[in-house]
Amino acid sequence: MSDQLSLNTFNGKSYALPTTLDDKKNIEKFLQINKNKKVIVVQGLGFVGAVMSIVCANSDNEDYAVIGIDLPTKESYWKICSINEGIFPVISADKKIDEYFHNTTINKNFYATYDSYAYSKADIIIVDINLDVQKELDHIQSDKIVNFSVDLNGFKNAIKSIGKKCKNDALILIETTVPPGATKLAKDIIDECLKERSLKTDQIKIGHSYERVMPGPNYINSIKNFYRVYSGVNKYSADCIEEFLKTIISIEEYPLTRLKNTNSTEMAKVLENSFRAMNISFIVEWSRFAEDAGVDLFEVVNAIRMRPTHKNIMLPGLGVGGYCLTKDPLLASWSMKEIIKGKDSMKMSEMAVSTNDNMPFYAFNIFKSFFETKPLNDINVHMLGVSYAPDVGDTRYSPVELLSKLLIESKCKLTFHDPFIAFWNELNTTVNKTFIDLKEPQDAIIFSTGHSYYKNNSELIRIIMDLESLLIFDTVGVLSEDEITKLSSKHKVKVLGRGDL
Amino acid sequence: MSDQLSLNTFNGKSYALPTTLDDKKNIEKFLQINKNKKVIVVQGLGFVGAVMSIVCANSDNEDYAVIGIDLPTKESYWKICSINEGIFPVISADKKIDEYFHNTTINKNFYATYDSYAYSKADIIIVDINLDVQKELDHIQSDKIVNFSVDLNGFKNAIKSIGKKCKNDALILIETTVPPGATKLAKDIIDECLKERSLKTDQIKIGHSYERVMPGPNYINSIKNFYRVYSGVNKYSADCIEEFLKTIISIEEYPLTRLKNTNSTEMAKVLENSFRAMNISFIVEWSRFAEDAGVDLFEVVNAIRMRPTHKNIMLPGLGVGGYCLTKDPLLASWSMKEIIKGKDSMKMSEMAVSTNDNMPFYAFNIFKSFFETKPLNDINVHMLGVSYAPDVGDTRYSPVELLSKLLIESKCKLTFHDPFIAFWNELNTTVNKTFIDLKEPQDAIIFSTGHSYYKNNSELIRIIMDLESLLIFDTVGVLSEDEITKLSSKHKVKVLGRGDL
Repeated sequence: MSDQLSLNTFNGKSYALPTTLDDKKNIEKFLQINKNKKVIVVQGLGFVGAVMSIVCANSDNEDYAVIGIDLPTKESYWKICSINEGIFPVISADKKIDEYFHNTTINKNFYATYDSYAYSKADIIIVDINLDVQKELDHIQSDKIVNFSVDLNGFKNAIKSIGKKCKNDALILIETTVPPGATKLAKDIIDECLKERSLKTDQIKIGHSYERVMPGPNYINSIKNFYRVYSGVNKYSADCIEEFLKTIISIEEYPLTRLKNTNSTEMAKVLENSFRAMNISFIVEWSRFAEDAGVDLFEVVNAIRMRPTHKNIMLPGLGVGGYCLTKDPLLASWSMKEIIKGKDSMKMSEMAVSTNDNMPFYAFNIFKSFFETKPLNDINVHMLGVSYAPDVGDTRYSPVELLSKLLIESKCKLTFHDPFIAFWNELNTTVNKTFIDLKEPQDAIIFSTGHSYYKNNSELIRIIMDLESLLIFDTVGVLSEDEITKLSSKHKVKVLGRGDL
Repeated sequence: MSDQLSLNTFNGKSYALPTTLDDKKNIEKFLQINKNKKVIVVQGLGFVGAVMSIVCANSDNEDYAVIGIDLPTKESYWKICSINEGIFPVISADKKIDEYFHNTTINKNFYATYDSYAYSKADIIIVDINLDVQKELDHIQSDKIVNFSVDLNGFKNAIKSIGKKCKNDALILIETTVPPGATKLAKDIIDECLKERSLKTDQIKIGHSYERVMPGPNYINSIKNFYRVYSGVNKYSADCIEEFLKTIISIEEYPLTRLKNTNSTEMAKVLENSFRAMNISFIVEWSRFAEDAGVDLFEVVNAIRMRPTHKNIMLPGLGVGGYCLTKDPLLASWSMKEIIKGKDSMKMSEMAVSTNDNMPFYAFNIFKSFFETKPLNDINVHMLGVSYAPDVGDTRYSPVELLSKLLIESKCKLTFHDPFIAFWNELNTTVNKTFIDLKEPQDAIIFSTGHSYYKNNSELIRIIMDLESLLIFDTVGVLSEDEITKLSSKHKVKVLGRGDL
């Protein structure tokens, strides 16, 4: 046993990291119980892999034995233990998660491990690991493209760990969002590994199919009951992936779409996320224009949305957050330069990310402008919302993080509220679910996530009206006209993207 | 009489430009016939002003006498003459245009002139002039922002010509797409003119409301039966504009939206066009990526469109054309810098225009790459489509223009087909409505506009199949899978945005 601990942030339980990495006996025991079942190994037990595992284990058409595999690190080991102790490592509003996971504990067809020995037993291997982009956000400017880099080594090593153990007729399905071209690289790595092991390479099946997971009340359905796009490195691979997906997805209602090659599905994934990132950055740029021109961009956008062709134009906000939209356009651009070695760069996509990432800085500067005469280090600020998006309990790459860090750097005293978050890992701070902090004197309240909970919340408005005059900074447009009018009678109210009120 | 002529390109008739600019007698005569009617003067008789004039003259709720005014120049004078001779200067598929214009000839309530004396008689003045952006397109690169400039002097002079003559209680409604802030400038100019004329400035009414004219079969309806956004420089102005618009637009079905200030409506107009330009440039960038990565972007986009949130993502094409989308994002950016004097520039919007404008260069280079061994000056190319958009007979800023000029510079011999265009002003060349040029030997055929006429046109496919082997370059994705397969059996087929076929 190591003295390093892996902490389960959900229930506070800690696990000592294993010192020997041999879990062979348990894997064999699990497979003994699940004799004659096809074996699926899911690599990565995060927001996608953990849920994909239980969806596979609950297939309507096939009896699968599912092994989830992750690393025995501080960050990940607790997930392995938690699953094997009967506690699912993802909290969700989706009741089906509990039901699906409960089924696996009864059927004993889901086991988690850190031992790559599992790959040697797999008929199907699903890759659900992360592939991150490193960004330098310290001195970002909206008209400069953010410095970033992509390190493919983690991905390549993960594929190697499969190649070193897998059967030479396994099906390897990559679901990770990767820079276009990566599945072809994976194919080369696997072939090389098989050759090193003196195995033939003509029976291996490799392909790419991306999920469109939406954590939240429809978590399971977003995998099982939604359109899927897939491809293989060759026709045989694509056919086998199709056969597999048919056992997982309700294809009668949501037909599968096969694309011509793996570059295509990889590109489809980053393209659809880049489309959203681009449309957000578009309105970010215009909200700055609106601020300078004294224009209420909310009324402008609402007027434009009356045109059927312009219905899905976005409203102003604090920028973009979450794991995908903040990096996928960069994955594309990086691939264009480094893998595809294309003639052009993807300047628009890069600039979309920069523009979005810059928005919290911009909001911070507007906030500061209200306190010209007072140093910011005297200021108490209560932040309403830390999640990256409305009605989601997920703080990954939340724009609120950057805004909060800038305020903290300026010596503001911050307190936090969020109906979905109890502890904010990124800032290592507790978050309240009640408005208790508003009993203390405040200099400013910032609406930082557009949770439904903050909309037409008469209790919240009443509490704020009881406070001494302060600044209310709505960065996400949750306040209604009536609420703005009411609050303005006592407080200074500023809504980002509404120009001067 | 001047020896300079103004040519009506529709019917070939020429008019000598007037040497004296006095049309007072005719204006007085027209007003005598239309006694007791409110007088509307429409400044500018182009695609918007001419049609707005007859819509006003056909109001269901008010008897208007409408005077259209334009400049006695080579480019515009023929429109004035044509209207007064009973021939409407815009050709359209909309039958209502004929009906509305015919009514004005019977009711004798529409007259056209070049004499600014008309402003002195106007109760309402509607500004429908052009406001252009000058761009340097010679050496455009997709990752460089195009050099451009905006000259407001034409607009300011037009407003001055009104201010020098108008009544001091006239209503001045600006419909021109202007850089945000321009209506406020117009208000200053009018006030100054009135002061110079020793008139009071507190009765004048000035505002902005933009049309969403769609030339084509619903031309009239796109003015009369569509949502309208408006604003005034003050509440009194906005109220009066509302009263006027109620007499023109079917407001029960299409309610009016009043915005807080004139910057807002001006911004709404350029924003909604920039939104489309941005979404086109997005897919332009990705089609380059797709080309380099060997990806068929059509199948990728069609797969993504199955997501309800991504339904209106665009398909690849030759870029963007037309009068609006090619310049409106630049008007916004120019305003941000020069009128609003904001803190940021609008780099995303500028880059969207550059990316779109660059697309014909990109297409040209792909075309060239098929003729590596043969100098281009031996090549006969037939272009299918010269309009800037499908099913529209409008060549203004068509991306086909740039592509054609590049081919001509390379000494290609071009012939043109378009079902909607007989003579192409910008290239000073005739355009065929039949496929007669395909009887001559060709080296390449370029599908350059996505007219419905070219889709599933079996006669066209048959004619092409009879030709000697040649290059077919579809830059707008009009060919179906079956047609591509058929044509590929004899010819080389390249579809822009489909990677390698």
